[in-house]
Amino acid sequence: MSKLLTPEQLETELRTIGAERYHNLHPFHKMLHSGGMSKKQVQAWALNRYFYQCSIPRKDLALMANMEDKAMREEWRQRYFDHDGIGEDEGGIERWLKLTTALGLDRNYVISTAGILAGTRFAVEAYIHFVRDKPLLEGIASSLTEMFAPKIHEERISGMLASYDFVDESMVGYFRERLTQAPRDVNFALAYVKKEAKTVPEQQAVLNALRFKTDVLWSQLDALYLAYVSPGMIPPGAYDPDA
Amino acid sequence: MSKLLTPEQLETELRTIGAERYHNLHPFHKMLHSGGMSKKQVQAWALNRYFYQCSIPRKDLALMANMEDKAMREEWRQRYFDHDGIGEDEGGIERWLKLTTALGLDRNYVISTAGILAGTRFAVEAYIHFVRDKPLLEGIASSLTEMFAPKIHEERISGMLASYDFVDESMVGYFRERLTQAPRDVNFALAYVKKEAKTVPEQQAVLNALRFKTDVLWSQLDALYLAYVSPGMIPPGAYDPDA
Repeated sequence: MSKLLTPEQLETELRTIGAERYHNLHPFHKMLHSGGMSKKQVQAWALNRYFYQCSIPRKDLALMANMEDKAMREEWRQRYFDHDGIGEDEGGIERWLKLTTALGLDRNYVISTAGILAGTRFAVEAYIHFVRDKPLLEGIASSLTEMFAPKIHEERISGMLASYDFVDESMVGYFRERLTQAPRDVNFALAYVKKEAKTVPEQQAVLNALRFKTDVLWSQLDALYLAYVSPGMIPPGAYDPDA
Repeated sequence: MSKLLTPEQLETELRTIGAERYHNLHPFHKMLHSGGMSKKQVQAWALNRYFYQCSIPRKDLALMANMEDKAMREEWRQRYFDHDGIGEDEGGIERWLKLTTALGLDRNYVISTAGILAGTRFAVEAYIHFVRDKPLLEGIASSLTEMFAPKIHEERISGMLASYDFVDESMVGYFRERLTQAPRDVNFALAYVKKEAKTVPEQQAVLNALRFKTDVLWSQLDALYLAYVSPGMIPPGAYDPDA
């Protein structure tokens, strides 16, 4: 890419990245929502994904710490509240723990993150570091996987409820909430990058930030697939459902 | 662990971590040095491992930047020279590029790191961040996988030379150098942590730093295994030997 794109062309390029690299294309995701997994495999997924969920507020706070504009911080802070909770809302982390508990995992073990895969940890921490260390524009652009999230959440809700007798409505509350939260959030972030990426290098950086984020999500499923699906190589120290 | 260890007991614990978690135990390593890989698989390994090699100077410089003691920086800087080169010595990065070039990979493509796995990138960057952000004691402790390195280098040299007709002596120069460099380096680092880890929390942190580092190495082989051995799921954007 060597020519400046219009804002609409930039959005098209961003959506193309999603169509090619979002983790709804990963075999692990397809297996999960189609009912192809054992309860133990779903447990391993929920346990590992907890580390992503509980790290999102840290990611958003790191991003907000880079915002000099008070109004922008006020715009963004709803995301922080969505995950850590505020007032009547218990927040997304607590909703995720409802899922892990209902799957039979010990709450304190989940919160300790002691059993997660190194691949999970390194990917999630890469996301926090990226947002903290890169220019604000790229940090915001890295959130744009939310453009593609409602579809995957819908697939998870309907697929998991239909496919597993150990999954009920009380366990999918996290995803239901995200169905309305993610589109709201993405409006601001997408408008921001379309407006602020004014040069070719900035547009390239925005596209690369989204590619980076799709890698963050994809490589978490890679690590889960290797350890818990095929060939089933659980690394030293990671959660072993049969131990 | 809740009791203070003697320095010798601490060393024993460190060696136990190596015996249980060092990546010489990984199926990918066994396959590599026993001749079980295709040339394309060896290429994928060398391409990805290049990112680790070229990042080691950044890791060591980040560590040195945390050293207030001039004498300690002078002690440590040989590691930096070993990889970036100095005077007559071309350095380890250049020696690694000899390997990748002899394997048929384009030098500029390797240096771009454009084709490496996200799992490789996130693991290696986690190492740099760890050393930069953690107390010096833990940063130094994370280097102690060098205690276990000579064995793996010997296995690689003899195994790869014996097993692959596309590997010759000119390609294993990196490993030959490391046979003398690593033991020299480890003497200082091991003595340092044995002397400076004076409390139970410090000793725990030292042991966890080494566990972390074994995860950094192990998860790189996990990512390679998934993508290029079994089930052969190459992530979007990563090097595809058959493309």
